[in-house]
This record gives sequence, C-alpha cells and structure tokens, in this order.
Amino acid sequence: MNYLKKVVLVSFCAFLSISLMAQTHPSIMLTKANVLAVRKGVATYPLLRQSYQSVKNDADKALATPIVVPVPKDGGGGYTHEQHKKNYSNMLNCGIAYQISGEKKYADYVRNVLLNYASQYEKWPLHPKRKSEEDGGRIFWQSLNDFVWQLYTIQAYDLVYNGLTVDERKTIEEKLFVPILKFFTEDRYEVFNKIHNHGTWNLAAVGITGYVLNKPEYVEKALKGSNKDGKTGYLAQIDQLFSPDGYYMEGPYYQRYALLPFVLFAKAINNYQPSLKIFEYRNKLLSKAIHTSLQTSYTDKTFFPVNDAIKDKTYESVELVYGVDLAYADINPEVDLLDIARQQNRVIISDAGLKVAADLAAGKAVPFKYQSLWIRDGGKGDEGGLGILRSGANTDQQCLVLKAASQGMGHGHFDRLNLLFYDNTTEIFPDYGAARFLNIDTKNGGGYLPENNTWAKQTVAHNALVVDQTSHYNAKVEPASKSNPTLLFFGNEPSLKVVSAKEDKAYAGVVMIRTSALVKVEGLEKPLLIDVMQAQSAKNHQYDLPFWYKGQLVNTSFQVTAKTDQLSTLGTKNGYQHIWLNASNQLDGKAGMVGLLNKNRFYTTHFVSDNPLEVKLVSIGANDPEMNLVDGKAFILSGNGQNQTFASITETHGGTDSINETVTAAQPSVSELKLLKSDAQQTVLSFKLNGKTYTYQINYTDKQNYINFK
Amino acid sequence: MNYLKKVVLVSFCAFLSISLMAQTHPSIMLTKANVLAVRKGVATYPLLRQSYQSVKNDADKALATPIVVPVPKDGGGGYTHEQHKKNYSNMLNCGIAYQISGEKKYADYVRNVLLNYASQYEKWPLHPKRKSEEDGGRIFWQSLNDFVWQLYTIQAYDLVYNGLTVDERKTIEEKLFVPILKFFTEDRYEVFNKIHNHGTWNLAAVGITGYVLNKPEYVEKALKGSNKDGKTGYLAQIDQLFSPDGYYMEGPYYQRYALLPFVLFAKAINNYQPSLKIFEYRNKLLSKAIHTSLQTSYTDKTFFPVNDAIKDKTYESVELVYGVDLAYADINPEVDLLDIARQQNRVIISDAGLKVAADLAAGKAVPFKYQSLWIRDGGKGDEGGLGILRSGANTDQQCLVLKAASQGMGHGHFDRLNLLFYDNTTEIFPDYGAARFLNIDTKNGGGYLPENNTWAKQTVAHNALVVDQTSHYNAKVEPASKSNPTLLFFGNEPSLKVVSAKEDKAYAGVVMIRTSALVKVEGLEKPLLIDVMQAQSAKNHQYDLPFWYKGQLVNTSFQVTAKTDQLSTLGTKNGYQHIWLNASNQLDGKAGMVGLLNKNRFYTTHFVSDNPLEVKLVSIGANDPEMNLVDGKAFILSGNGQNQTFASITETHGGTDSINETVTAAQPSVSELKLLKSDAQQTVLSFKLNGKTYTYQINYTDKQNYINFK
Repeated sequence: MNYLKKVVLVSFCAFLSISLMAQTHPSIMLTKANVLAVRKGVATYPLLRQSYQSVKNDADKALATPIVVPVPKDGGGGYTHEQHKKNYSNMLNCGIAYQISGEKKYADYVRNVLLNYASQYEKWPLHPKRKSEEDGGRIFWQSLNDFVWQLYTIQAYDLVYNGLTVDERKTIEEKLFVPILKFFTEDRYEVFNKIHNHGTWNLAAVGITGYVLNKPEYVEKALKGSNKDGKTGYLAQIDQLFSPDGYYMEGPYYQRYALLPFVLFAKAINNYQPSLKIFEYRNKLLSKAIHTSLQTSYTDKTFFPVNDAIKDKTYESVELVYGVDLAYADINPEVDLLDIARQQNRVIISDAGLKVAADLAAGKAVPFKYQSLWIRDGGKGDEGGLGILRSGANTDQQCLVLKAASQGMGHGHFDRLNLLFYDNTTEIFPDYGAARFLNIDTKNGGGYLPENNTWAKQTVAHNALVVDQTSHYNAKVEPASKSNPTLLFFGNEPSLKVVSAKEDKAYAGVVMIRTSALVKVEGLEKPLLIDVMQAQSAKNHQYDLPFWYKGQLVNTSFQVTAKTDQLSTLGTKNGYQHIWLNASNQLDGKAGMVGLLNKNRFYTTHFVSDNPLEVKLVSIGANDPEMNLVDGKAFILSGNGQNQTFASITETHGGTDSINETVTAAQPSVSELKLLKSDAQQTVLSFKLNGKTYTYQINYTDKQNYINFK
Repeated sequence: MNYLKKVVLVSFCAFLSISLMAQTHPSIMLTKANVLAVRKGVATYPLLRQSYQSVKNDADKALATPIVVPVPKDGGGGYTHEQHKKNYSNMLNCGIAYQISGEKKYADYVRNVLLNYASQYEKWPLHPKRKSEEDGGRIFWQSLNDFVWQLYTIQAYDLVYNGLTVDERKTIEEKLFVPILKFFTEDRYEVFNKIHNHGTWNLAAVGITGYVLNKPEYVEKALKGSNKDGKTGYLAQIDQLFSPDGYYMEGPYYQRYALLPFVLFAKAINNYQPSLKIFEYRNKLLSKAIHTSLQTSYTDKTFFPVNDAIKDKTYESVELVYGVDLAYADINPEVDLLDIARQQNRVIISDAGLKVAADLAAGKAVPFKYQSLWIRDGGKGDEGGLGILRSGANTDQQCLVLKAASQGMGHGHFDRLNLLFYDNTTEIFPDYGAARFLNIDTKNGGGYLPENNTWAKQTVAHNALVVDQTSHYNAKVEPASKSNPTLLFFGNEPSLKVVSAKEDKAYAGVVMIRTSALVKVEGLEKPLLIDVMQAQSAKNHQYDLPFWYKGQLVNTSFQVTAKTDQLSTLGTKNGYQHIWLNASNQLDGKAGMVGLLNKNRFYTTHFVSDNPLEVKLVSIGANDPEMNLVDGKAFILSGNGQNQTFASITETHGGTDSINETVTAAQPSVSELKLLKSDAQQTVLSFKLNGKTYTYQINYTDKQNYINFK
C-alpha cells in the first residue's frame, strides 16, 4: 500500500468516527458558495447558458405536465419504467432551475413529486417484472435502476432543501429516503457489497444520501462496506474494479456507465471532506478512469464496443459530461478536455461546468489528444489489456484496437485477440457489440436478447481466431476469468506502431499470437494495417479467422460464385448457426485479396496463409426466429493444419467522389504478399509496393528487436 | 405554337442567316465585361472566395503534375478514362485561374494540354472498349464522355483564348476542335439528332464550340438539327424532353445530368444573342427544369432515386451548381435559391456566381421552399407525373412520392404507382435505385450491372403492386412506353395532402388505383401516411405489395417465425429470384402491423386487406453470384382474389435517445384499422386514435369530394 493510500484510509477512519461537518445545501455538484458565480456564468458563457437553457426548458416542461407517480408495473422501456426515469430527471432539472433562477415554483415541483413518492413508496412490494428476488427493485424491474433513481433524486433534494419546510423534509426523509436506505443496504445487502457496477451505484446512492441526510453511519458503510472492514465498499471498488491505468474490466461501454457513481460520490466526498483528497486516491485513479474512458473511444465519439455494448453510445453521454467537467475543474485542467466538452455541447450546471464553460469561452481548447496506448487490465495491471494504435489527425484518424483484456465478468465476450479497425471516422472491421435493443420493450423488454449469448458473445462473431468451430474457453465465463492474454510487445514509433499479444489457454494445446501494426510506408498517404495471426499446436485443427466488415465488396482476386437459390448455415452451434454461408472459395494459391468500398474510400485486404486457403463470404441472420440480429457481413479466412498463420495487409486507398462522379486509386498498390516463414521464433512476410520489395519480420523472442521492417 | 416560341424560332432563322456577332473571349460563364467585377468579388464575398480558392488549388495541383495525355485504353473508372476526365477539369480550372489571377502560367498549361491532344487526336481510332460502333467515343469508351469532355474543354479554350498565339489557336482548332466537330456531327450523326440526353451533350458541345470558333453552321445545326428543319436539335429537345412543368422523363437522376448541357448552351446563346431570349423559351422552360430538379430532391439533398439512379447523388452536384447560379442570376433571383447555393457551398466562378455570392453575403437567403406538387410528365404534360407531398420544416420534413410518370425510356423502371416515403432527413420506404457502382472498374467496368435488369427494374424491387409475380408490362420498355398512369386527384390542404393515380395497362384486365395521403390528426406531432392500393379485376390474381424499408424491425402484431437453417428464394423470375424469404406469416385476421426503428424514431405500419392476408418478411441477395446487390429488407403484403385492396396507415411516433438512454412513445397510437368497403366507387377505412374513431373515405368518382376524413 503506497503512502497516499494509507493516508486516505487512515483519514477516513478518523473522519468516520466523528460526526460529519456542518450541513450546507446544496453541496454536491453545485455548492452554496458558488451559486452566485454560476448564475453570473449562465449569463456570460455560451455553453453554460445553453446548457442551463436546456435544463430550464425541461424543467418548465415538467411544470406544465401533471405529476404522475405510477405504481411500478412495466419492464425496461415500458410506461411506468420510463415515467419513473422521467420523474428523477424532472426533479434534478427543477432543482437546478430553482438554484439558478431562485424561483420557488421549481422547488415546489420537486417537493410535490417527493411527497407523492413518500406517500406510496413503503406500500410498493418488489417489482412485478423482476427477474429474480435478489436483484429486483421496487420502483423498477431491477434494483440497479432504483439506485440510479436515488442518486439523481438525492441531488434534487439537496438542491431544493432550503425551499422545504422542516415538516416536509421530515416526511420525505422518513417515508422515502430512510426506507430506501434500508432497502438498499439491507434487502440489497449482496448487491451493496458486490464488487461490480451495480454495487457502485448502490453505495454511491447510499453514501451521498448519508451525507445529505447527515447520517455518517451510511457514509461509512458506503465507503468501507457493510462490515466497515474495507473489504467491500467504495474504496475496495476503486481498488479492484479498475486497473492501475483506470480501465474497467467490463469494457468501455460499462466503464462509461460505471463512471457516474464513482465521480459523483467522489465529488460529494471532496466537498464534505476535502482534506481526504479522494481525487488523489490510488495515484489519481479516478482521473485516469475518466481519461481512459475517453481514450477508449474513436473519433466518431463512440466507445470501442467490445464486450456487451450498445453501439451508438458516445462520450456525449451524461456520465462523461460529469466526468469531463470534474476531471477538468476538480482534478487537472488539461485543455484538450475542453475539446471533448465542446463536442459534448453541454456542461453540468455546477461549479465544474462553470469553469469548463468559462475556459472554453476564453478559447483555451485544443484538439483532444488521442494516443496510441497499451491500457493495462486487472487490479494490479497484470491481466492483459487493450492495445490501441492511432495515426493521423482527429479529423481523419486511423485506429486499430487489439483486445487482449481479461474476461470482463458476465458482460465479457469470448474474443481473445479480437481486432477492431477504424478509418475515415467510421468502422472498417467492426465489433458486433451486444445483441440488445436498449429499452425497447417489444424486444425482450429492452434487455439482452437470447442471441447475445448464442451469437454476440461467441468467438466467431468477432475478428478473432476460431479453432475447430468452437468458442474460446467453450464460452464459459468461469475458466475464461481465470486467465488472460499476455502482452508480448507494444511499440509506438511514428511510422511503426505495433501491439503483439499471446493467448494460450482459450483452446487446449493451441498458442495464439496476434501481432497487429500500423506501418507508414513512403508513397502511401495512410499506414498499412499489417496483421499476423499465428496459431501453433501439436495437433491438427481447423482454423477460421473472420474479418467482419462494413461497406460493400467491390473487388476480389478470385472469382466469387455465391450461392444462388438456397442458403445454409455455416455450422450448427457456437455462433456458427447464426451465419449464412453466401460463398466459399478454395483459392488456387495460398494468397488472395478482398476489396471493399466504405464511405467512399477503398480498403483492400491482401492475405496469405501457410496452409491451403479457403475464403468464405458470409452474413449474419440464420437461426434467428424473431429477427433479433442486425445485418453484418464477413470474409472468413479458413485453413487446416497443426500450425496456422494468417497474415494480412489492409491497404487504405483512393475513393469515390459522388458529387463529382470521380474515382481515384481504385486499385491497390500492394502486391505479391508472401509468407516466407512462420514459427515460434519468427514470422517473415514480404510484399511489393511501388516497385520496391519490403520485408516485415516479427521476432517473437527478441523484445529488443521485435519488429524488423525494411 | 405560342407567340413567344414563334418569335424565338423566327429570330433564330434570321440570326443564323447572318454571321455571328463580333467575337470576344471569354464569353460563356465568365464574360470579358465582368472579369474585373468577379476578381473584386473573389476578394469580397466568402463563398466566391472559397469557391475560387478551391479551383485555384486544383489548378495549382495540375501545374505541379506532369501533363499526361494517354492513348485511350480503359473503360469507365479505369486509368485512361479518369486521366482524360482529370485533364478537362484541370484545363477548366486553369482557364478560370488564368482569368482571375491574370497569371500566364495557367494559360500555358491549358495550351500545352490542348497542343498535346491536337498532336494525337486524329490518330486515335474508335475506343477499344466501346460497346458498339454506334456510340463508341474516341477519347472514352462511349461518345457521351467525349461530348462532356468537349463541353468542358471548349470553355477552357475560351477562357485562355487571349493568352494563345494565332498559330497555337490554329493548330488547336484545326487538329483538335474541327475534327471533333466532324466526329460529333458526322460519325455521331445519329446521336447528334437523337432526342435524348446523349444528344443534348453532343449538340451543346457542338453549338458552344461553334460560337467560340465563330462557325455559325455548327451553331445552326446544334439548334435545329443536322437538317436544320427543327425536327431535331436543341429547341426540339427542349420541346420534347421536358414536360411543361420542366420534368425530364428519365427521372431526377438523369434530369440533373441532362441539365448541364441545356443550361450551358442556353447561357452561351444568351451571351451571343441575348435578343433571342432563350431563357424565356417555352414559357421559361429552363428555369422550370432547374426548379423541378430541386423539387425532386429530399431535404437530405439527394434526388428521389426513381428509375436508374445512383442513390448518393445530391444537388451539390456541379450541374445543379451551374443550374442554381444561372437560375438565380440570369432568370429570376428567387432568394430561396440562395439557401441551396449555401448548402452546395460553392458557386461557379462566373458572372452568375458573383451575383449569388454577393446576395448570400448580403444575407438575402431564406430557406428553400419545398412544395407539395403534382409534376406533370410528357411533352404536353399529359403522360402522368410525379406526386410529391411534404409536411414540416426543412429540418424535419416528411415527404411522400408517388411515381405515376411515364416509362422514361431505357432507364425507366417498371414501377407504376411506386411509393417512396421519407422522414427525419432519411429514407423510410426507399427505392433501390440502380444496380450499379458508378465508375468502379471492377464492377462491370463501372456500368450498369446485369442485376439492374433482373432486379432493380423489376416491379417487386419497388413499393409497387405486383400481380401474379410478374412485372408491369412484363418488363418490356416498348409497351410500357405507350401508356402512362393517370392522375385522379391531387389535393394540397394544410392538414390533408393527397395524390391519387390510376394505372390500368400494366397488367391486362387489372385496374390499379393508389391513393396516398399525409393526414394531420389532432394529438399527433407528425401526419399519418394513409395509403390505399386498390386493384380490381374480373379474374383471380395473386397480389403482392412490398414495403421496402430501412431500419430495424422491432415490433409486429403477429409472432414472427423466421426460417432458421435454410433460406430459399421467393420465386424464380421477375426479380423474385433475387429475394430471400426470411419469414412468412399467414395472419389470423385480415389486419396487422409492423413496427420499425429507423434513425432513433419509430414507424408503425398498420395494414388491412379485404382478402386473407399473408405478410412475408424478405431480404435482397439471392441469385447474385458476384454479390453485386446491396442489402435491403421488406415486408410484403400478399393476398388472393379478384379485387384486392391493401390499406395501410404508417404512423411516425416517439423515438430512442441513445445519449440519454431514454425511449418515448414506443407503442403506436392508432388501433383497430378496418376496411369497411372497397369498390369502384369508394374505399372506406376506419381507425381509432386517442379514443376517437376516424373514418377515411375515398370517393373515386367524385372529384369535388374525393377524400372525406372525419
């Protein structure tokens, strides 16, 4: 345990043995001392003004609509579900409008809604649509949503506290918040003490409620777990859920989601007990988590959709608005964060939002500094990680992601050494993400679809190597959670960015090493993506390496003869049952190429194998009786042997201009890709480009000279 | 023949018997008298400055690159094809740069390129990649591209004319332009005299070249045809190719393309002989054609892709930049055209572009006035037309297109009464457009693919009624060209916009009437699309009405049970061979609904039939050995009987907010859609909405009271 960590823990112990500091309200995102400054800022800084206007519009809309607090009934996306969500948003918006405008009507609205809840809450049993007794909520089908509800609602209460009578406060606290605290900490004891994002939401709601209601007992439990031994609770969650690089093991989609309770609670702790320096905890872990969250997005603002992820999720999401505002205002004012704030196009009406909006108005923003990174996974940073390679300006960035992270618990996919590729602000080789229509009630209540397990989590749904048509770890979470890929090499030279990682437990007796690089070559505008997937085994296997792609197939080195009258599935299980086989092509040689047109740009993947090579052209959609799956296409490289290396070069070239009806560089420049050697020591490729022959050599056992390119 | 038309024709006769007016250069888009003003405008008006900067950048890039005039060899999209296209662009850009900057180097570049062409042109035989002897070019695989080349090149020549020596002009004219004139008018005599867009390009190139070279003989032929009798030539083309409403029978994609030679030649005529008032010809036909071209686009800037059309074509296309600049500057300065110019984000560096940029800078622009229109087709306006209904602001417009136009010659599709539907700046019920990857050499040389005939033109590829799984007119152009749909009714009330048309020759013995409306109903934000397709016949038929849709299926009134392990085609011919049948559902009743999610908004189509109803869920892609087709999905309403009415209400509702993870109004509001009656006199529907029962009645025989809605 480092020095700082000790200090913080000791301070907490000290602090929790005495009563909390004197109460002032509001005291979370917006603090009493800053209200006047924020009011002035609203009149001065465009982004703050516009953000407040939006909050106020919503607050006014709420005031113009009858208050409805329905008896909980519907699942995700259903009427009562959405109404209760709307209620907490409305309350928070009105709370903010009350503080900024000073108009009592907003506080009255929050009071009325809270009194309505207080009059009913204790009568509500567990939600009728709950999936289990253990995680059912009372307001929502799952308790997670109850925690979220409370986290928002307690802020609204804090904002209007001074606009309520003592009696009103008493009713609301005794009939609503105290029962909620009891429900969260006692009935949901397991969740409260679980090292998991549901637990974070629970304890953050409890902790902040404890602060606002001046109930230190609850704050202490939130920080150190129900047993107050530090084995669970907030600090344990910071220690265990994040890697030292601030990576959250479930992946970027859930990292974004998990972030909000972490930073909100941190902000509350910092306000009530600034001496505890919570933002310094674990070597500024929370700051790292916010930055890592941003670094795990592409320039189209979306998060890398590895593991269970809703694909259109971007850093415009409110959690990251909180995150960016706090990171900038409370932790470290790095001016490239202002670029993100500008693209988020809003700030939180708060002390932090004031500072961000003011500095943006002062013209301090610079483009966000996307980096090429190896982001470590695991509490100690030794459970693999995410390799991210980037090249080019934010306006037209090429980006490669190699997923070599740990399993990520129940939301993890079985996609060791999965490759994602982006260019031109769009996906080239995408990840399917989760099979889910979030909050759309008609689609399995808005929850995960059955195909999330049978398809989205399976290896073949990814750009990952499949051995013998089975999934990594047979798609079992438990064995998969016990091991993780290892980083072999990470290099970040301007013209040679590379990440190489190994996975040797996914299939018994098969060692897989993937080495992916962005390589700048003279005469080409964009780097080449050179990808070498090597599998070594003492036994014969069938190997499939899919490249799921976006765009349209416009070129192949071989004659495509697609199935005409009948389509059949590629297999019967492990995800293969969801794939239609459109065409299979046994190549004459061991090399070939496939050309795509995507968003008016050409991408040609040249590939070569050390075994006879078959290319399968496939699409998603089989064994999907309710038509839950979304479209997707892939070319799959297939081979048979003991050892199998698939090497490929993906070249970005030319494009079509649909306004001027011109086409440039429709033909690729790379030719004669050859696999000269591939064994445990080395893989050696050669190819021709503009009359010159290049060799690309990977030295697996020589870290000092891992890649040799000339 | 109206008075004005007579005046123009007589004037032309008089004018052509004398020599042309004194020559000045330049004298087409940019005229000598205006050069100084345009130079000043470039320094003053942002859009002109930026447009010129772009031209100059391209000109400078050209100067920095060696001149290459390759011997013609490749087809569309191939190297020599693209290089010759690049050459004419470069020459025009340099010609403009010469006039604006006054720098001789730009004129020298054009001279050098032209002399290079002059040294080779006469040696070039017909292009080796020509598809026929009749329309092969010499520079390009088809003569059309040669015409285009000349139309650009002659402008460049005009722009640098004063920078060339007498000898240089002599060489260029005698060795290049005169042989070209001969090739265009003699070797391509048939095309020159064809009433077709290829003919327009040819004669515009010839006519303008005639003006610039002071060869009135060629101008006269261009205007009145090779025989100078007015039966062919420019004026005959204006008379015959456009309807009185300025609609070009091949459809918006080709209208846009055809427009450029029309307006360029008109501009040249107007400059050389302003007294002829060519822009007034045929009741300001050219102005109407430009406006109609814009009115046949949606607010996403794309043209309605009926008939053979490349779908990403927008009014940013250079032809419309010329068109909008000239319409505004030379015909009528309607300030909503400035909105289009602003979105095109460029002007032509010309007299017209100067005026547009100046007025834009003066803040005169207002939003473009999209209208609900019945646009007549046919030279006399009596060959059907295009019905366009629009509702809402340009920022979120709902738009319905009913295609009831004539066949449109060889580029026409067999899609009588085809329905297109747009909302939220995107396609909801799209048209496939053409099966073609324009200029992509690897895809059939960039030309139309075989699937354009077997799929894209067939009826089932459209949102049009298919009888007995055959296409309209058995997909034969000749019989289809002999008849056309008839308009029964067009109404444009604020809350009830409707178009109703009849087609009774597409299938022997079947009368089809489609009545489509946008109907505003109290309590709904967006209008309902109420669509009634009625077919009447004395014999039994099988009827299919496809709704090709974008987005994801998220709701159905029936249990979907999609095929799991095998997919088969829906049929064996007439386009059906390209359709995979994913699911078929025989409904219990005669009504049902399908819900879609598209760009975060819900669309629910409620439908009802007078016969037992089957709903087929299908996708595109069968019998496509080279994988030329792009993805698409549809639900097809199917019924059997003598008469068949499919009535549907498509409701736009609610949506998902992926940033805030909220869903609103996921469930539709319309219910209990019933078909109360459908015969030759009337169709009567009823439905419930917000507790009220509405009836919608079509009175086919009562034009005074065609629609009754209450």
